[in-house]
Amino acid sequence: MRIYFAGSIRGGRDDWTTYRDIIALLSNYGSVLTEHIGDSEISITGEDLADDYIHDRDLEWLRKADVLVAEVTTPSLGVGYEIGRAVEWGKRVIGLYRPSPARRLSGMIAGCAGIMVHPYDEPSELPAILRLALNPEP
Amino acid sequence: MRIYFAGSIRGGRDDWTTYRDIIALLSNYGSVLTEHIGDSEISITGEDLADDYIHDRDLEWLRKADVLVAEVTTPSLGVGYEIGRAVEWGKRVIGLYRPSPARRLSGMIAGCAGIMVHPYDEPSELPAILRLALNPEP
Repeated sequence: MRIYFAGSIRGGRDDWTTYRDIIALLSNYGSVLTEHIGDSEISITGEDLADDYIHDRDLEWLRKADVLVAEVTTPSLGVGYEIGRAVEWGKRVIGLYRPSPARRLSGMIAGCAGIMVHPYDEPSELPAILRLALNPEP
Repeated sequence: MRIYFAGSIRGGRDDWTTYRDIIALLSNYGSVLTEHIGDSEISITGEDLADDYIHDRDLEWLRKADVLVAEVTTPSLGVGYEIGRAVEWGKRVIGLYRPSPARRLSGMIAGCAGIMVHPYDEPSELPAILRLALNPEP
């Protein structure tokens, strides 16, 4: 299984350790095409590459992926954009979301029939969530 | 001309007065389908409607629109998602972006050939930007 993991970069790196942990979990299910999202060396300024190169490379990875797993706690234009393209392509889209009193998940994400959103309070819940979300039906 | 204006709601309402001013400018060019984005009464919690209703209503408006104008300064999953769908549909997409030293625009937005991004420093620049972006070629 080829997995595209999406998490915020220039929208904010507050959750990067969670991204790193999710990527480690996802690697048990297949090959993660976007491992750099969980890299401590990638800051809010992003990769030192031309934007059109990043866009075209990431879209190509997304096109090849069997599933998009998106961590949607930190608002991010790029993650939203990737979800929009993937929904349009009929890809399986899994959202992971940590609710907080100060915020609500975007209505466009929470209300999209093409996205399966799994809320969680603690990263310790993620192994079980991913097991249910990614394993094939029995 | 039918114009879909996109700006952050649940991602943060810091720029809502700018959205209001952009919507007022856009109404000189056609009908703005999403005037509520510039409404002072819409807070970060969003509209008091079911998410699937909001999603399907907004997508229907986006589908009918001739152009998507997105203010992309505040990171927002919903705005990114709408841009992704609109690019996929071959819609004209105009981005308005206020650069700041602390942030960079998402590589997926800045690097997408289907989006024309116009940076601005002050809202006073927006009338001229929109005149150039929205008027038909001479």
